[in-house]
Amino acid sequence: MGKRKHQFVDLNYKPRKKDLVCLFRVEPNKISIKEAAHNIALESSIGTWTPVGTQKDYVNKIGARVFHIVKKNKLIKVAYPCELFEGGNMANILSSIAGNIFGMKLLKNLRLVDIEWPKKIVDSFPGPRHGIKGVRKILGVKERPLVGTIVKPKLGLKTKDHAKVAYDAWVGGCDIVKDDENLSSQNFNPFKKRLKETLKMRDRAERKTGEKKVYMINVTAETSEMVKRAKMVEKAGGRYIMVDILTVGFSGLQTLRKNTKLVIHGHRAMHAALTRNKKHGVSMMVLADVSRLVGVDQLHIGTIVGKMEGGFKEIKNLSYEMKKQKIKESSNKLKQNWRKIKPVFAVSSGGLHPGHIPYLIENLGKDIIIQAGGGVNGHPSGSIAGGRAMRQAVDAHLANKDLKEYSKNHDELKQAIDEWGYTKPNAKK
Amino acid sequence: MGKRKHQFVDLNYKPRKKDLVCLFRVEPNKISIKEAAHNIALESSIGTWTPVGTQKDYVNKIGARVFHIVKKNKLIKVAYPCELFEGGNMANILSSIAGNIFGMKLLKNLRLVDIEWPKKIVDSFPGPRHGIKGVRKILGVKERPLVGTIVKPKLGLKTKDHAKVAYDAWVGGCDIVKDDENLSSQNFNPFKKRLKETLKMRDRAERKTGEKKVYMINVTAETSEMVKRAKMVEKAGGRYIMVDILTVGFSGLQTLRKNTKLVIHGHRAMHAALTRNKKHGVSMMVLADVSRLVGVDQLHIGTIVGKMEGGFKEIKNLSYEMKKQKIKESSNKLKQNWRKIKPVFAVSSGGLHPGHIPYLIENLGKDIIIQAGGGVNGHPSGSIAGGRAMRQAVDAHLANKDLKEYSKNHDELKQAIDEWGYTKPNAKK
Repeated sequence: MGKRKHQFVDLNYKPRKKDLVCLFRVEPNKISIKEAAHNIALESSIGTWTPVGTQKDYVNKIGARVFHIVKKNKLIKVAYPCELFEGGNMANILSSIAGNIFGMKLLKNLRLVDIEWPKKIVDSFPGPRHGIKGVRKILGVKERPLVGTIVKPKLGLKTKDHAKVAYDAWVGGCDIVKDDENLSSQNFNPFKKRLKETLKMRDRAERKTGEKKVYMINVTAETSEMVKRAKMVEKAGGRYIMVDILTVGFSGLQTLRKNTKLVIHGHRAMHAALTRNKKHGVSMMVLADVSRLVGVDQLHIGTIVGKMEGGFKEIKNLSYEMKKQKIKESSNKLKQNWRKIKPVFAVSSGGLHPGHIPYLIENLGKDIIIQAGGGVNGHPSGSIAGGRAMRQAVDAHLANKDLKEYSKNHDELKQAIDEWGYTKPNAKK
Repeated sequence: MGKRKHQFVDLNYKPRKKDLVCLFRVEPNKISIKEAAHNIALESSIGTWTPVGTQKDYVNKIGARVFHIVKKNKLIKVAYPCELFEGGNMANILSSIAGNIFGMKLLKNLRLVDIEWPKKIVDSFPGPRHGIKGVRKILGVKERPLVGTIVKPKLGLKTKDHAKVAYDAWVGGCDIVKDDENLSSQNFNPFKKRLKETLKMRDRAERKTGEKKVYMINVTAETSEMVKRAKMVEKAGGRYIMVDILTVGFSGLQTLRKNTKLVIHGHRAMHAALTRNKKHGVSMMVLADVSRLVGVDQLHIGTIVGKMEGGFKEIKNLSYEMKKQKIKESSNKLKQNWRKIKPVFAVSSGGLHPGHIPYLIENLGKDIIIQAGGGVNGHPSGSIAGGRAMRQAVDAHLANKDLKEYSKNHDELKQAIDEWGYTKPNAKK
């Protein structure tokens, strides 16, 4: 250590199959990008700020190596021998590659853009239990996008009223009803009672419509309580749980995945605190990769057209990454072989309404779950009409019909478009 | 809802004792700060982007209220009735006040600066089991700052070599030896073996020095594995564990707190991805508050003078917040009554060496743990000398002696200062 200048940089190095590769965007603080890159690789693997007498030759072999620097766009690639990590321990892996380095004074900004996970690490995680195919099987829906709602108002409804909103949305046509991210087990609507009442309504809605319906109840809590709630859902005949993956954290998420057979829907509340500033922090692509490895079956990836930030290209890439097994390398993206890890159902949610549906299907494909909370429960004729309008919008687009034309014979869709407008499928990005 | 314009803003509202109050810094995106504030309070409590027919009058009572807007410094205060939250469920609370709102298109940037936790929420968390007093009791050190090291190189050392580094540092004078944040149970140094070998060395160092010594072994992992490792530590006669609170996540941390009687040292790897950009994300003050409530006994707060970012005022405020029971309101800070929640021992670590010690004690007080990894193990005469130099620096400053003067009769300290320099206690901030 500390003998050769920039010894963690080796631009002739070719990453091996067992290396984990990170793509970083780096803004150095008054030093060269090479110096910055060296220090990132050092701090995130085996080194520290000063040479140490306790260093051993056998340690140097597993040091990280910067093997690619593009000064112009500030991108560097670092290869980490997988011996550095404990397989199956996501927190441990992130503590190296997404840990101290964000705080180094030598850097102004640091962005972890993407990760290529090697075979050994990929195989150490379970991935989704159900994935896209499993979810489609449960719902008996082969090809069309799934539609859902979030019970609104997001907090405060009493249990009976909550269950009634769910019922109406299902009967109207929603496949899925979801709790909001901040509903867990508050006094106004406690978990156990909500589970019972809402599943009762689900059964009623299934009988009424002849369709399968699912309720994604929010189990977000301290880990053992969360697992306990998931068990309650299994026992009560539920098929799904939802969890706030970032406020819970990855160790809790791993534990939940291990302890339930239910479909896991991952909500990403808090992600934008980490992901929004494109110069610093962790990209949503990295969080999506982590979620796929740990094993959520569904994950929010953004809306493009809704109330939340997230650009067209970013969300299209996320949707692709989640559903494919092999990803090719491109300028801003590392390659990936997902091996046996199942695809994750991408979810668009946040400020959506029926008028957005053709645009979302056209741009993100049919393997998408489209959720509208206000866009169903704020329908001028109520939640049943809101659910109908969602399905009508899907039907119209899948039948290659213009939404406005189609709405002339479909009142609920017409009302929705009159209220909130319509984004054409080919609207500019 | 949606009847009155900006109905979530009420500048005449006086927060009640049972309100949780958030201080946000807001950069609106082409709207007024009032409009932005209204939307933040709405999205983080009971509302959504469009009025919903499912709204009930009884729900409106628990809506959040913006009661303070200072346009000049972009600060707003929002009061949340504590009925909105599930007590004792940190993930649930954060999913409201630190969740979706960071991603709203209506905002350019949003920073959660501080939180005032009401009695009901404070009392729903256990806080540290040991706190500053408990830690001092275990170590038998009444007043002086504690000093420690981190075994270096941070990854790659075999178990025997790891334990030897620890032994030397203890014998030299360190109270504490800590694993690095990215060491958990890799093949080169598996957890169980490391625990056994290092505690054996601890016992030997205690016999040799007549002082109490502690080993902070890193249990960071999937939650049930983490709890299992903590139990192993208890059984093996360890007194401490350490955990990466952010890569593990708060639900896992809560579970760990519930399931161990050991002292918990909280490492904050990844925090700077959330905290570094002062315009966006979550402040370290908020993360520190959360950690105190959930119940870590020790927490990294920064170094001012070391290799990691973090300004003088920020770190001084953090140190104050961690050790006091009542905090007064100031321009950038909400008041807080910590009630029965014990104080947390603040830890400075990251690029430190003996020459920094007088400055740190002078500015952060005696209730501080000063850790030097490279600054002990990189000592020109090795880790024993490194440990000695740390204690000599503490002794010198507590005896009101200038470090350079003192070092004339203390070789190890002199060597350290010659190698790395010396920051005067009154150096400018």
